[in-house]
Amino acid sequence: MNESASPTRTVFFVSDGTGITAGTLGHSLLAQFSGARFNSRNMPFVDTLDKARDCMRQIRETAQGTDSRSRPIVFSTLVNPETAAALRDVAGHALLFDLFEHFIDPLEQELGQPFTHTVGCFHGNAESSNYKKRIEAMNFAMSHDDGISSAVDLNDADVILVGVSRSGKTPTSIYLAMQFGVKAANYPLIPEDFERNKLPGELHKHRAKLFGLSIAPERLTQLRQERRPNSHYANLENCRYEVEAAQKLMRRENIRWLDSTTKSIEEISATIMQTVHIEPAY
Amino acid sequence: MNESASPTRTVFFVSDGTGITAGTLGHSLLAQFSGARFNSRNMPFVDTLDKARDCMRQIRETAQGTDSRSRPIVFSTLVNPETAAALRDVAGHALLFDLFEHFIDPLEQELGQPFTHTVGCFHGNAESSNYKKRIEAMNFAMSHDDGISSAVDLNDADVILVGVSRSGKTPTSIYLAMQFGVKAANYPLIPEDFERNKLPGELHKHRAKLFGLSIAPERLTQLRQERRPNSHYANLENCRYEVEAAQKLMRRENIRWLDSTTKSIEEISATIMQTVHIEPAY
Repeated sequence: MNESASPTRTVFFVSDGTGITAGTLGHSLLAQFSGARFNSRNMPFVDTLDKARDCMRQIRETAQGTDSRSRPIVFSTLVNPETAAALRDVAGHALLFDLFEHFIDPLEQELGQPFTHTVGCFHGNAESSNYKKRIEAMNFAMSHDDGISSAVDLNDADVILVGVSRSGKTPTSIYLAMQFGVKAANYPLIPEDFERNKLPGELHKHRAKLFGLSIAPERLTQLRQERRPNSHYANLENCRYEVEAAQKLMRRENIRWLDSTTKSIEEISATIMQTVHIEPAY
Repeated sequence: MNESASPTRTVFFVSDGTGITAGTLGHSLLAQFSGARFNSRNMPFVDTLDKARDCMRQIRETAQGTDSRSRPIVFSTLVNPETAAALRDVAGHALLFDLFEHFIDPLEQELGQPFTHTVGCFHGNAESSNYKKRIEAMNFAMSHDDGISSAVDLNDADVILVGVSRSGKTPTSIYLAMQFGVKAANYPLIPEDFERNKLPGELHKHRAKLFGLSIAPERLTQLRQERRPNSHYANLENCRYEVEAAQKLMRRENIRWLDSTTKSIEEISATIMQTVHIEPAY
């Protein structure tokens, strides 16, 4: 793709709140145009007419520095009717997408209620019970990392992640908490468990909540080298042994598991939620 | 709002990938209808015609159990043309929103490129450099929590959060990493720093990256009681002293800060990104 075919576009994400909804949908759409190059500019908290005007000034300035083939693109989730109307004035300088506009009318009709123009992403309201649930789940994940969970706490967990050290349990449990309000405990499978060939601790009491993470030994040895270079722990042969033994144990105990090697924490988390039948706390 | 005016709606989020984009935009829209009640059903990884048909069967079954005033609502980000077309058959049973449809044509025209129908949220591709940056930032946040950062590591940080213990530094730094790929180190302000009345360690070398979190003493004492009940650490008078001394220090050192008491980690993070001038690594 040469320069003239694909100039870099500046993309503005404009929101009354954090800009997370605008960023999420906007980037998902832009990811569908792999030949194009983008510069992101997040414009959060545009909650007054003055801020909307300042935002428009920045968009116009960016537009003036480019030719018409590379005018800025603007994704907006403004819900305040006045600031949203003001932003429409950028139409001569930029391609503007109002991400809510198309959906409001049909939703108002369907629900028989007016749109309330409430500022703020559903995830960003610190007073909501769902927000409190997410923070509580996050504290749970961080204090129940690596098998320090007591039996009582395992009762509280929505899901218990098992797997060898560095198979991806910690980032997954934190993501589950932060995104979905799911309480995930971690429980490492260690060589002693393979020798005894049984599940550690009280895990057998919580079968329905267990989910295993496996990983390719070649990837595991890299991750462990970063933590403890040249150790037996990080050695490829040892990684092969642990991964194989863990998979054998999980199969025998009928624990559902997936290979995390090429999966993102988003993909791993969505699979866990689907498998263990947990719905997000939104 | 009485029962008959507002039946509980089942809302399906259908995606070829994780369902995170559908969930984010869908819930942001639904949050605008505060009188309505919703049940969420996430349907991720609908990446074959068979899975699309199974998904439609579940939507139809849900519809059959309700009257027409409370038919299901479906938010879809299916990018595969075949499964997206198949899903349109639910239109008789549910209100269907295709979240990409409205935006694809104008974007194709603007960018002069076809939509690539790539499955997967921009955030969910484990092979992308941005994903690797997010995971690296997360490991950074978790290994640089609570002032254990060495001077060298502070050079690597995009932002350094300062504040008294339990003012919200840890969840904020993890959110910054996970959502935006931002490397955030934490540095607690402790009573010894207030007695010396100067910034601890090497912080003065990193002024441009410092951001402070403060918190209401009444909230701080609650949070600290959970960690160490009936301690001097958690005592309200001590919390008042620490918060006031930290604010004095931050003002004197010209550190930008905010009060985290009633703010969500999303709001805190968006404010930090805006203040310290960091753009997200998408």
